[in-house]
Amino acid sequence: MAFIQTDTFTLRGYECDAFGRLSIPALMNFMQESANRNAIDYGIGIADLERQGFGWMLMRFRLQMHQYPRYSQTIRVITYPTVVEKFFIYRDFRVEDEAGTLLADATSVWLVFSIEKRGMVPLPDFIKKLNPPTGLEPLPKLSAKPDFQTNPFVPTQQKDVEVGWLSIDQNQHVNNVAYVQWLLEAIDKEVLQTSELIQIDLVYRTESHWGDTLQVQSASEAADTFVHRIIQPESGKDVLLARTRWTSVHS
Amino acid sequence: MAFIQTDTFTLRGYECDAFGRLSIPALMNFMQESANRNAIDYGIGIADLERQGFGWMLMRFRLQMHQYPRYSQTIRVITYPTVVEKFFIYRDFRVEDEAGTLLADATSVWLVFSIEKRGMVPLPDFIKKLNPPTGLEPLPKLSAKPDFQTNPFVPTQQKDVEVGWLSIDQNQHVNNVAYVQWLLEAIDKEVLQTSELIQIDLVYRTESHWGDTLQVQSASEAADTFVHRIIQPESGKDVLLARTRWTSVHS
Repeated sequence: MAFIQTDTFTLRGYECDAFGRLSIPALMNFMQESANRNAIDYGIGIADLERQGFGWMLMRFRLQMHQYPRYSQTIRVITYPTVVEKFFIYRDFRVEDEAGTLLADATSVWLVFSIEKRGMVPLPDFIKKLNPPTGLEPLPKLSAKPDFQTNPFVPTQQKDVEVGWLSIDQNQHVNNVAYVQWLLEAIDKEVLQTSELIQIDLVYRTESHWGDTLQVQSASEAADTFVHRIIQPESGKDVLLARTRWTSVHS
Repeated sequence: MAFIQTDTFTLRGYECDAFGRLSIPALMNFMQESANRNAIDYGIGIADLERQGFGWMLMRFRLQMHQYPRYSQTIRVITYPTVVEKFFIYRDFRVEDEAGTLLADATSVWLVFSIEKRGMVPLPDFIKKLNPPTGLEPLPKLSAKPDFQTNPFVPTQQKDVEVGWLSIDQNQHVNNVAYVQWLLEAIDKEVLQTSELIQIDLVYRTESHWGDTLQVQSASEAADTFVHRIIQPESGKDVLLARTRWTSVHS
């Protein structure tokens, strides 16, 4: 059986930013919630994997904002798996207003790790055999290694954050969206006040843990484009790599 | 006319903490959202006040947790004004599960400030004349100056936080719940891992602003009780005073 998940969310005040637009972390949390529910229908929810000694890891995520919904609007989040490969499973998201206008879309790549081996494994059979819904055109495939991962990176801004208790989820992992919050809060005041985000492209690399101090770095790539890294200074490991694109508003 | 606001919330994964319990900041955000909606029905919403040159300020808030709801449960938040005085308006909250069992309750005290005078004013007539619903027993009145405000306070723990972009609401104020997040994240790992919060009592004193660095201080008052302060180190002003009570779990 194939499952398409559809959830409606009526935007609450605290889910909106200083300009009354749905905040990016709130939207990503909605998407994460819908993805979890869809996975449960497929028998591949977090608990299903855990029982068999596995866990999900988000590897890539790219979000495109077309139009920001605002306080008290109702939106629909639609998500489904698109492609299953040996190591990766792909999932798309569409966000629509009540009239069906596309507000945002996103595509993502997930892998499975073995709790015992503490590393990535081929998708177990019960995941590999799932049927994505048919007749839906998947978004273009994300590359495993985008250019902002391989290009030289010289940070011009740097900030420390501590992984707090409230960023830890029921599975004792740091919520994927928490990193995006830290990345956004490290962005120039000027940019946050005069622009809105139109694209965020993410590469998740390593897990971090409660109490870790992370370094959030960024650099401007063009007037409207930034690259970001979150690193674990002690190990020198990259936790997250990202590129964000912005457009001027409120001028 | 009198209005009682009732909203239902089905708990999403990211609204729950590492033990799968509804997180305190998520619950307080639900309450804040329901309070805003109730205020709009009464014609005393944030926008109604702003048009007349006024703003709301939360002065006191006390939350009692009786039982924590968990992921995917549906809860009801019920809120209404209880008493209107010359300077203060009181508002109660009840949180119930679907069977009507009381999970939490809270009481709060609000004042009005004049944007022009930049200070507290008596409640304007259009607020003063409102009718609280009848037949509901208000929770005991909170004192304006609780003992944890006047007792000597010697912090044993201290931590800096920066007021980030995502804590700023549409009215350019710091979300009242953000302070509670910072306060909770500054609490001992041991306490967070072995206890759950059963009461939080808050005194809001001064506004802070985007980009401010605040100091989160705490001290143990008894084995299960802590006092907290959030201060603006530059001005020396208190932003928030609090007491939290905890009970052991997960033993």
